[in-house]
Amino acid sequence: MSDHHVYKKVEIVGSSRKSIENAIENALEECSKSIRNLEWFEVLETRGHIEDGRVGHYQVVLKVGFRIMNS
Amino acid sequence: MSDHHVYKKVEIVGSSRKSIENAIENALEECSKSIRNLEWFEVLETRGHIEDGRVGHYQVVLKVGFRIMNS
Amino acid sequence: MSDHHVYKKVEIVGSSRKSIENAIENALEECSKSIRNLEWFEVLETRGHIEDGRVGHYQVVLKVGFRIMNS
Amino acid sequence: MSDHHVYKKVEIVGSSRKSIENAIENALEECSKSIRNLEWFEVLETRGHIEDGRVGHYQVVLKVGFRIMNS
Amino acid sequence: MSDHHVYKKVEIVGSSRKSIENAIENALEECSKSIRNLEWFEVLETRGHIEDGRVGHYQVVLKVGFRIMNS
Amino acid sequence: MSDHHVYKKVEIVGSSRKSIENAIENALEECSKSIRNLEWFEVLETRGHIEDGRVGHYQVVLKVGFRIMNS
Amino acid sequence: MSDHHVYKKVEIVGSSRKSIENAIENALEECSKSIRNLEWFEVLETRGHIEDGRVGHYQVVLKVGFRIMNS
Amino acid sequence: MSDHHVYKKVEIVGSSRKSIENAIENALEECSKSIRNLEWFEVLETRGHIEDGRVGHYQVVLKVGFRIMNS
Amino acid sequence: MSDHHVYKKVEIVGSSRKSIENAIENALEECSKSIRNLEWFEVLETRGHIEDGRVGHYQVVLKVGFRIMNS
Amino acid sequence: MSDHHVYKKVEIVGSSRKSIENAIENALEECSKSIRNLEWFEVLETRGHIEDGRVGHYQVVLKVGFRIMNS
Amino acid sequence: MSDHHVYKKVEIVGSSRKSIENAIENALEECSKSIRNLEWFEVLETRGHIEDGRVGHYQVVLKVGFRIMNS
Amino acid sequence: MSDHHVYKKVEIVGSSRKSIENAIENALEECSKSIRNLEWFEVLETRGHIEDGRVGHYQVVLKVGFRIMNS
Repeated sequence: MSDHHVYKKVEIVGSSRKSIENAIENALEECSKSIRNLEWFEVLETRGHIEDGRVGHYQVVLKVGFRIMNS
Repeated sequence: MSDHHVYKKVEIVGSSRKSIENAIENALEECSKSIRNLEWFEVLETRGHIEDGRVGHYQVVLKVGFRIMNS
Repeated sequence: MSDHHVYKKVEIVGSSRKSIENAIENALEECSKSIRNLEWFEVLETRGHIEDGRVGHYQVVLKVGFRIMNS
Repeated sequence: MSDHHVYKKVEIVGSSRKSIENAIENALEECSKSIRNLEWFEVLETRGHIEDGRVGHYQVVLKVGFRIMNS
Repeated sequence: MSDHHVYKKVEIVGSSRKSIENAIENALEECSKSIRNLEWFEVLETRGHIEDGRVGHYQVVLKVGFRIMNS
Repeated sequence: MSDHHVYKKVEIVGSSRKSIENAIENALEECSKSIRNLEWFEVLETRGHIEDGRVGHYQVVLKVGFRIMNS
Repeated sequence: MSDHHVYKKVEIVGSSRKSIENAIENALEECSKSIRNLEWFEVLETRGHIEDGRVGHYQVVLKVGFRIMNS
Repeated sequence: MSDHHVYKKVEIVGSSRKSIENAIENALEECSKSIRNLEWFEVLETRGHIEDGRVGHYQVVLKVGFRIMNS
Repeated sequence: MSDHHVYKKVEIVGSSRKSIENAIENALEECSKSIRNLEWFEVLETRGHIEDGRVGHYQVVLKVGFRIMNS
Repeated sequence: MSDHHVYKKVEIVGSSRKSIENAIENALEECSKSIRNLEWFEVLETRGHIEDGRVGHYQVVLKVGFRIMNS
Repeated sequence: MSDHHVYKKVEIVGSSRKSIENAIENALEECSKSIRNLEWFEVLETRGHIEDGRVGHYQVVLKVGFRIMNS
Repeated sequence: MSDHHVYKKVEIVGSSRKSIENAIENALEECSKSIRNLEWFEVLETRGHIEDGRVGHYQVVLKVGFRIMNS
């Protein structure tokens, strides 16, 4: 077994009408459908659309790190 | 009708005793009193005051973008 | 009495299974055990661990400012 | 007459289907309708919408500086 | 139907002997061969090679955002 | 009375032949002619013109924060 | 044959118990298993784990650029 | 005797009603009460409070470096 | 012959009434009068003067890299 | 036992005549004399002194993270 | 006569025992001994040495721009 | 003798097939052929070429500071 690992990061944007945390969860949920071994996330940007003077959607830009299999 | 739009951004700071999301909503609510066509926001900084070792107020610095009328 | 104050900032990382706000509160609670006169915080980074494709812990990196006694 | 001037900067976003330069000109044209003494601009971001795999609109975020009258 | 979308961003570099805009178009054209639902781009860097004291190629580093299908 | 406030920030550039501090004061003086409730400033850039190999003018780019009335 | 190329960048994290250079080599070795035409890398972050007060692993975050085939 | 030294940096905020330089001196004066071997400082931010449309206090955020004893 | 090269970068500002690309070409043309082996450029800033509410000059700040002879 | 931890970061500068890795090890060795539970480091800056046209000392600025006891 | 100019920037560090402004003037004075047509400066960093717990020297890192002759 | 010094910084890129440290040494060696009084360096970027899925050359971008003679 190797004594070191290699990870990859992808950049995704999750959105939610409810909260910043929910936008993060939505992004991770989608991400985990196609990628295994998700290990950590980093928030790069928090932003959103405004509808009628109120938050319409929160949009959170994330980097998500995962371990490359067999590395 | 024009095939392009021009937007302006203003920088505002909202605060709330409750949450980061609520500080954003408070900023947008105030902003929408004087500006129409608010379209998006970008969070620049999240900070706050501490009272008795706990969060007193969250303060969220935002850029808010709006479309210039008739552009 | 002096007409000016001096402050110091320390960098701490709070974590929480619940929310970004809760991670901030956990950091401040720990910080206030050993430091008096905490006055403000600034969020530097928001990140977290992923467990089973969902947020395991939010981790929030903060700078916390406090007034130096007698300054 | 004063030996110094004071300037203000505003942040605007111009767009164009044609080019980056045209997006800048569109932003300045709109800006000059309401502000006099425009003196310089700084490009902060260049971005755009994609339509059918091609650039739909260029969007250029600018800071525009103007001299405050009588300063 | 979901009330939120998830997007992914990839980083690509387009080049052109003609112009910055053409380098962006070349990058998008290549990108659209393998990715559907391209929605926006952000210019990260503009640079180039010099040949005989003149611009040989413009090179534009872009982030390109696209919607994840069925999200 | 509200338990939270909303602030706005504007970006101004002050200049002075004398000093950096004087350029800041000149900017604030001009700013206070049209805006009430100025509360804080942040220096973004310090620069200047050179005349005959010496500083001609200091130019200081500031963000100035003020409380929005009745917020 | 085209007179321009298109490149893509991916973000990977290599680790090593020995050195920063070895962590870079480990990342490239893993990366070259699945991607052809790797052309350059850029170091974004250097960090690591500490074990017993000494470096346990160096972790190097890289962007790796490769030419898209047939572009 | 060691052929290398180890330094630590702390972040402090000095303030002054008079000038930026005086705010730096005030921060260093306070810092030198509890830390020996102060060697250098780096200005991170310059900001201040406004009172009656004029500078109330300059606030200068510094990193201060000092040699760790016996290193 | 050496198996490695050393490069130097200089920072120049080109201007043009026509376009961003032309400002880059003007900078390179001037630069190539006194420096041989120019190899690449990186755009640091794009800005300009405004005349009568329109772009007067584009100003593009570049880093230009060249190989040091015999290195 | 708590389901969350709190970490603190300190900023240190290690130096070495030999290598970047050795400068990091020197910093950690000194740091571990006074702090327990060191967990990770992040390289902020790499720099050094030059003696007779060669590297005299490498200087590496690190943030070092450690878990606060009983948190 | 050309309708455009080309400028070059150099990076210098001035120091002074007295003030930040004096460090800038010292840098410009030295710079003007060998370079003509100095036009503007930009402050990149402000730092200094500490002697006996007080500022020993201010050190100001500047970019200085000058017009290239005949451009 | 003056009580202050003036320094200049130049930006160079060293390369090496062996290591990051060797690329720095190669850059300094070349630099010291034409410049006296080199005093310090700062690493701005670490990158490299990839050959056959392995590091071909490390490339390290440095700022090198030197004292201006007689200053």
